[in-house]
Amino acid sequence: MPDNQYNPTRPFVFINAAMSADGKIATIERRQTRISGSLDFDRMDELRASSDAIMVGIGTILSDNPSLTVKSPQRREKRRAGGRDENPVRIVVDSLARTPIDADIFKKGDGRRIIAVSKSAPQERVEEISKLADIITAGETGVELKRLLTELKARGINRLMVEGGATLNWGLISQGLVDEIYTFIGNIIIGGRTAPTLADGEGCKGGFCRLALISCEKLDDGILVKWKVLN
Amino acid sequence: MPDNQYNPTRPFVFINAAMSADGKIATIERRQTRISGSLDFDRMDELRASSDAIMVGIGTILSDNPSLTVKSPQRREKRRAGGRDENPVRIVVDSLARTPIDADIFKKGDGRRIIAVSKSAPQERVEEISKLADIITAGETGVELKRLLTELKARGINRLMVEGGATLNWGLISQGLVDEIYTFIGNIIIGGRTAPTLADGEGCKGGFCRLALISCEKLDDGILVKWKVLN
Ligand SMILES: NC(=O)c1ccc[n+]([C@@H]2O[C@H](COP(=O)([O-])OP(=O)(O)OC[C@H]3O[C@@H](n4cnc5c(N)ncnc54)[C@H](OP(=O)(O)O)[C@@H]3O)[C@@H](O)[C@H]2O)c1
Ligand SMILES: NC(=O)c1ccc[n+]([C@@H]2O[C@H](COP(=O)([O-])OP(=O)(O)OC[C@H]3O[C@@H](n4cnc5c(N)ncnc54)[C@H](OP(=O)(O)O)[C@@H]3O)[C@@H](O)[C@H]2O)c1
Repeated sequence: MPDNQYNPTRPFVFINAAMSADGKIATIERRQTRISGSLDFDRMDELRASSDAIMVGIGTILSDNPSLTVKSPQRREKRRAGGRDENPVRIVVDSLARTPIDADIFKKGDGRRIIAVSKSAPQERVEEISKLADIITAGETGVELKRLLTELKARGINRLMVEGGATLNWGLISQGLVDEIYTFIGNIIIGGRTAPTLADGEGCKGGFCRLALISCEKLDDGILVKWKVLN
Repeated sequence: MPDNQYNPTRPFVFINAAMSADGKIATIERRQTRISGSLDFDRMDELRASSDAIMVGIGTILSDNPSLTVKSPQRREKRRAGGRDENPVRIVVDSLARTPIDADIFKKGDGRRIIAVSKSAPQERVEEISKLADIITAGETGVELKRLLTELKARGINRLMVEGGATLNWGLISQGLVDEIYTFIGNIIIGGRTAPTLADGEGCKGGFCRLALISCEKLDDGILVKWKVLN
């Protein structure tokens, strides 16, 4: 399993996502959708268990309210036996500290949480959240992702799993901060002109981010594709 | 090579498209982009040569101005030897008859053209275009795709290749009019919240169109994925 020996300033970063055959990661109403099957679900759980931290954008928290915990008791037990928390550190990229106090990432599962905010986040929201999570402040209005990753590395996070959504993925990819991308491509068409895709944001007009294919294989009723990002 | 023996009312319809690893078929400026390599280009040329007709939406004509001709002299010769036109019939789905008179589909290559319009198309545009192409009128304001396909079948078109774009693909898929989808997935990330994807339009909110994987294989620096549509 690769780690980031060659980059001392940030963790090894990989994106894991499930998309439809037409590149969508949710419906046009931004509603989460069962795209992958049980083998892919298990693969994702193993990826979570093998990571030091899992990161999502505030958009994903607000639309899906995921817990981001390791589901398998065996994998949790193995982490504990290795002297680690049951769950990887859960991180939300959230400039304005909008993460709800009753979000499932706070309510479910043991382990640390980090909310990454900007200097524009309202002080009272930051204080409220700081009772439930560590706060990292990076950036004036939006979260400065590069600084955030440097800070995470300094806190001992060497292997970071990114679980979306579309806007955070784009932010990381476009700034050259991603090492690998794993996509499960499911056997459905979702469609929709503005449905979230694997990478949204501003988009490239030229000078596209290039990838190298690591592997592709059938999995469940779809395919698992692994790309290395060539920065 | 499959044809549509089991459906006497319309041709066998397949979509062929090149998309980025994040599902985009062009940039956010709707600009065509080199996604595939030479092996995929040759595969596409063979698909064209083996089809009775090639269909695109007016959006694709206006943004890319494709000629939609068979590029290989050998393949053109083989078609002629078989008593057919050098090029498949080129069809544009174009409710308002906006196809420019100087579009490359008219200027380049031998063979028939069909412009499919609706009853809302301005009469003078239809007359102008009818000097260069056959006109099929189907539908009041937009082109009624199901009626159009029935009409094409009646004209001897048994194997229809659809080459996009995003809106036409969605129209056909959502109405259950597609048999197979072939996507070349290239080794780039394009990104962009509104960049065209394999299937745009309204999108599904539930009851997604289901596919069955036919095959996936490495090709050039990307992968070729073939899906059967389960209607
Ligand atoms: N299928 C899958 O694998 C999968 C996985 C996850 C999510 N999803 C879907 O993805 C959708 C959510 O995606 P989304 O694009 O709306 O939200 P997102 O990517 O989860 O979060 C984006 C938000 O993060 C914040 N942010 C702060 N700094 C940022 C930076 N430098 N770069 C990028 N983002 C930054 C911004 O909000 P602030 O300005 O308020 O901070 C931004 O709007 C949902 O529909 C969800 O279901 C699917
Ligand atoms: N990478 C690839 O493989 C590939 C291939 C082709 C295109 N592209 C890209 O795709 C983009 C163009 O896609 P697009 O979505 O803008 O245009 P499009 O799908 O080519 O054409 C859509 C248009 O067709 C007309 N239409 C009429 N009846 C319709 C019906 N029943 N259903 C759907 N459409 C109907 C509509 O215009 P009217 O109402 O005026 O008739 C509609 O706006 C371009 O950026 C191009 O570069 C990429």
